[in-house]
Amino acid sequence: MSLVFRRGIASMASLRKAPKVVCIGRNYAYVPLLSNSKLYSFPLRSARPKQPFFFLKPTSSILPPGAGPVIRPKGVDLHYEVELALIMGKQVKNLEASDEKAAFDSIESYALSIDMTARNTQNEAKKKGLPWSIAKGFDTFLPVSEIIPKSAIPDPHNVELYLTVNNEHRQADNTDLMLFTIPRILSDISKVMTLEQGDIVLTGTPKGVGPVVPGDVMRAGLKVGGKEIEEAKIEVK
Amino acid sequence: MSLVFRRGIASMASLRKAPKVVCIGRNYAYVPLLSNSKLYSFPLRSARPKQPFFFLKPTSSILPPGAGPVIRPKGVDLHYEVELALIMGKQVKNLEASDEKAAFDSIESYALSIDMTARNTQNEAKKKGLPWSIAKGFDTFLPVSEIIPKSAIPDPHNVELYLTVNNEHRQADNTDLMLFTIPRILSDISKVMTLEQGDIVLTGTPKGVGPVVPGDVMRAGLKVGGKEIEEAKIEVK
Ligand SMILES: [Mg+2]
Ligand SMILES: [Mg+2]
Ligand SMILES: [Mg+2]
Repeated sequence: MSLVFRRGIASMASLRKAPKVVCIGRNYAYVPLLSNSKLYSFPLRSARPKQPFFFLKPTSSILPPGAGPVIRPKGVDLHYEVELALIMGKQVKNLEASDEKAAFDSIESYALSIDMTARNTQNEAKKKGLPWSIAKGFDTFLPVSEIIPKSAIPDPHNVELYLTVNNEHRQADNTDLMLFTIPRILSDISKVMTLEQGDIVLTGTPKGVGPVVPGDVMRAGLKVGGKEIEEAKIEVK
Repeated sequence: MSLVFRRGIASMASLRKAPKVVCIGRNYAYVPLLSNSKLYSFPLRSARPKQPFFFLKPTSSILPPGAGPVIRPKGVDLHYEVELALIMGKQVKNLEASDEKAAFDSIESYALSIDMTARNTQNEAKKKGLPWSIAKGFDTFLPVSEIIPKSAIPDPHNVELYLTVNNEHRQADNTDLMLFTIPRILSDISKVMTLEQGDIVLTGTPKGVGPVVPGDVMRAGLKVGGKEIEEAKIEVK
């Protein structure tokens, strides 16, 4: 797959050299329901955490377009989480959540991403109070799309994300279901760690996360006003 | 404090641009003992975990020599952890722990570092099964020394680390007390995430970790064969 370089700061080459990748957890609350041996879920706004929490993925986990497959480590229950990614265009430090203009101005461009997760490893880490870095940080655990120009997404809180596995629909929701808005997310992160030009921020995943096994084909994308954004398409085994 | 640039790949400027910082947890097991209202501890080899675990600190937390002070976030119980840092000179992927030559060859140079930790935030994260990234990732939470040339440390498993607070001894132990050796650490990390040239690996802290408050002066250093290594000295408020 050929790489398309754009005029902005961000390019595929620069993505792989991002200073850091910060990921928001549980930003689309939902309750999993077990029914007919299949896992269903529905959004539940009331399960909103008091404040956003976040974690780091290493940039070594980034899988550029066409560089697949995602490698499943031995014994790992591998889950997909489709997420809108922000690519930062400037340094952000101690941002106030109310300063929406500064928040949106700090975004250089977007990408679609899949936050691959070793779910059994993560569950064990949670139980033991251990870090999530291993569960989230294996090589190839962050497939990303081409860079999406900022102009293609006039409102990042009104974007349809979707993910299919072997052409079956698994995730399909609007980013208007985010529990914490992008200015609030950037504010909270920037009060802990300075966001730097080139940093990537994953904004959380909607309902429908689930397992994939080697050979499965994941396709993900993003629609704005019902129209598919070409740069956002991800196809990865 | 003036920065000294060396001929190797690593320099202060490059440290701040490290692709990632990977930190080993609990690599010097010890049992804390409360006695006379003071916290003592002693090493306990039998408390060795089954395998090393690790987490990421963002490179935005790096505090170069002379760039202090460490900023204590509001409400945070701030703890120091002095650690020997490895600076990687080449890519390492799926290293076998038995390949000690490859492990040592992959190290470009060393540094001393203090893994500052928001202990109350970390304890809360552990209890809730949440990531450690916030507790470990605040700006200024990684004071580092100047680069230590590889030739100054003939055996990284025989180095005296120390840390004082307001000239009182708090940590002083030899790296021969590491539970997992450096080849084992590099092997375990590299089987999850590829180590890249410039990556920084923190190897864990010996007993004696504890709190500091604004105004306290931390001094840390490293001795080889009883001789102080000048480049390793850290002095930070
Ligand atoms: Mg996620
Ligand atoms: Mg990084
Ligand atoms: Mg530590």
